[in-house]
Amino acid sequence: MEILRKILKKKGGKIVLVVADGLGGVPHPDFDFKTELEYAKTPNLDKLARESVLGLTIPIDFGITPGSGPAHMSLFGYDPIENDIGRGVLEALGINFALEDDDLAIRGNFCTLDENGLVVDRRAGRIPTEESKKLVEKLQKEIGKIEDVEVILKPGKEHRFVLVLRGEGLGEGVKETDPQKEGSYPIDPEPVDENGVKTSRVLKEFLRRAREILKDEEKANFVLLRGYSKPPRLVPFEEKYGLRPLALAYYPMYKGLTRLLKMETPDGLNNFDELLDYMEEHYSEYDFFYIHYKDTDKAGEDGDFLKKVEKIEYFDSKIPRILKMEPDVLAITGDHSTPSLMASHSFHPNPLLVRSRIAGSDDAREFNERTCKNGYLGIFHAVKLMPLLLAMAERLKKFGA
Amino acid sequence: MEILRKILKKKGGKIVLVVADGLGGVPHPDFDFKTELEYAKTPNLDKLARESVLGLTIPIDFGITPGSGPAHMSLFGYDPIENDIGRGVLEALGINFALEDDDLAIRGNFCTLDENGLVVDRRAGRIPTEESKKLVEKLQKEIGKIEDVEVILKPGKEHRFVLVLRGEGLGEGVKETDPQKEGSYPIDPEPVDENGVKTSRVLKEFLRRAREILKDEEKANFVLLRGYSKPPRLVPFEEKYGLRPLALAYYPMYKGLTRLLKMETPDGLNNFDELLDYMEEHYSEYDFFYIHYKDTDKAGEDGDFLKKVEKIEYFDSKIPRILKMEPDVLAITGDHSTPSLMASHSFHPNPLLVRSRIAGSDDAREFNERTCKNGYLGIFHAVKLMPLLLAMAERLKKFGA
Repeated sequence: MEILRKILKKKGGKIVLVVADGLGGVPHPDFDFKTELEYAKTPNLDKLARESVLGLTIPIDFGITPGSGPAHMSLFGYDPIENDIGRGVLEALGINFALEDDDLAIRGNFCTLDENGLVVDRRAGRIPTEESKKLVEKLQKEIGKIEDVEVILKPGKEHRFVLVLRGEGLGEGVKETDPQKEGSYPIDPEPVDENGVKTSRVLKEFLRRAREILKDEEKANFVLLRGYSKPPRLVPFEEKYGLRPLALAYYPMYKGLTRLLKMETPDGLNNFDELLDYMEEHYSEYDFFYIHYKDTDKAGEDGDFLKKVEKIEYFDSKIPRILKMEPDVLAITGDHSTPSLMASHSFHPNPLLVRSRIAGSDDAREFNERTCKNGYLGIFHAVKLMPLLLAMAERLKKFGA
Repeated sequence: MEILRKILKKKGGKIVLVVADGLGGVPHPDFDFKTELEYAKTPNLDKLARESVLGLTIPIDFGITPGSGPAHMSLFGYDPIENDIGRGVLEALGINFALEDDDLAIRGNFCTLDENGLVVDRRAGRIPTEESKKLVEKLQKEIGKIEDVEVILKPGKEHRFVLVLRGEGLGEGVKETDPQKEGSYPIDPEPVDENGVKTSRVLKEFLRRAREILKDEEKANFVLLRGYSKPPRLVPFEEKYGLRPLALAYYPMYKGLTRLLKMETPDGLNNFDELLDYMEEHYSEYDFFYIHYKDTDKAGEDGDFLKKVEKIEYFDSKIPRILKMEPDVLAITGDHSTPSLMASHSFHPNPLLVRSRIAGSDDAREFNERTCKNGYLGIFHAVKLMPLLLAMAERLKKFGA
């Protein structure tokens, strides 16, 4: 899409992209073979479907189940495979940590080991944020530097923290220590390639000291490390599309990702309602709004069909607030599907609805996976959504004569 | 599609590709939220839809609004981005001018400047062709050569003319002088890269002289230049597909484009009926027929919904003439959409209908955007249409064993 840059207009309509995380599902045998979206009562979305065009988007490619990072990269029009962003980087950005270009960011979890050193709880009983914060401070105080590498620790929510290594020669090629299941030993951070040798040495020393410092803790007596990564170089969203963007999210990772694209991303908003408050207040200041609703995904991950239904219905009840702002282009979709039948992210395409004056010809009367499959937009790769939204906002000039 | 060449058969059915320019539209709020194609009475197309398979084609890519040049390149199966053809080249070919390989072709417009030198009419009141022709001849007579560059001027329709620079070292990297809006000064043809330096010098001198020569004209007192381009090297259509092609169009640009593909393109045909006359007369001589109907696009560009409806109904009335020739494969589609709601080309996909003995399974009973979205052919990139038509004409061998 190199041609996009050549045909961008300086002006055009406002675009609102509403992402209900993990929105899509699959038919559930216990609920009349309906999906959550079919089962939920969504009068506002259904009414909107009549005025919109529908489709399905493939987050990455056929059969590929994405994490939220790559799924969002697609939604923002960045090839998610070319622009793979590590979990550590996303976590660091999510807590507002100013990463430097060569920093190696790592996602840390407190965990519980039993007397034999086996992981019995990968999340240390989800210890409270306050408690976790004290432990992070303690680690930081006692481990300031390893070799010539500055070791920076920052607390996250509950059992999570971010570990940043700042120094020269720190590659990503090291084994993650999280065994991904209980009842196993933590994995040693052995190097997997040459550029991981120094990182491996530093991490081994870090873990040795952390084990010593935490040994008397009841729950959080060790740490697991994963998502070693350096910040990628990405074209800022505003430069790519000529849109002044506002990104609204109440979960760290999504804020982190939008910061990487240099979107404006306010802190201190704690739920979807607060995002909408902020959006209403600042609606005149931006051209593009990304607003993220997390709760659908959480309920899906919990495998709780009715809870996901409830979260969808809550989401539906907020649609009128968005419509009241009168966006020129309104897109509602997921980043990936999270069927409660699977209790996990999945490869299924995302239901998509787009309303604009010039959206096109559709005949849907409801918004769900089945109506979306018959939609005018067809089934297409999510990475193509942004060009389509720009076109519907009349922000693209003609290509060629 | 390099494999195509390897699997081409020497024989097979006749293919007729009928292009109603700008055919597709979007639902119009003043006309019961119907598109032009839905609103129009099209008994012949609807009957044909029952015997055909339908689909939608994306002219270039999601969200991209094409000019007619790239949109047609896609229809003919040439990647429109790799094979970008300049406006100047298309105009030159359209008036039957024999471009040489290194010629630089430029699209010219007469325009009106006010006493301060501001453009007050980019088309000089659309002066009549006869008047414009005289001015072109005057310019040609007085400006034969600049430096070592031969300056060739050819009249077009109304305010349009073609300027060809023939000489060495003439690159395309020069600013277009058309400000694209009234109330602005013409832009100086400054070079934008090294290979435009000489071109810039020659054009500045050309414009200096033209301003002097035209200064006493009431309307056409200056010229605007754009679309600087050299002819691309393209594989001829016949070589690419093993089809002997006849291209029928009554507008210059379309003839120009088909000449670039070395199709046979008769001159002197002035409307769709005359194209059909010619086609009937020469039907036995060719394997592939491209026949172009312009009026749908013009009405759409004028933003005149009912006029576009009327032009569609006229088009529909000609379908029996085409059917009478009994093509083995008949495709009817647009090159791009031109919704009268937008009064411009758009990014929306093209309605497509294909009839052949082996077309496939469809259940459409009407031909419009909504029935096409549900069609057997799905939504696909227009550049894939030609292979599909070849297959339906039984002109492709099996790939592999």
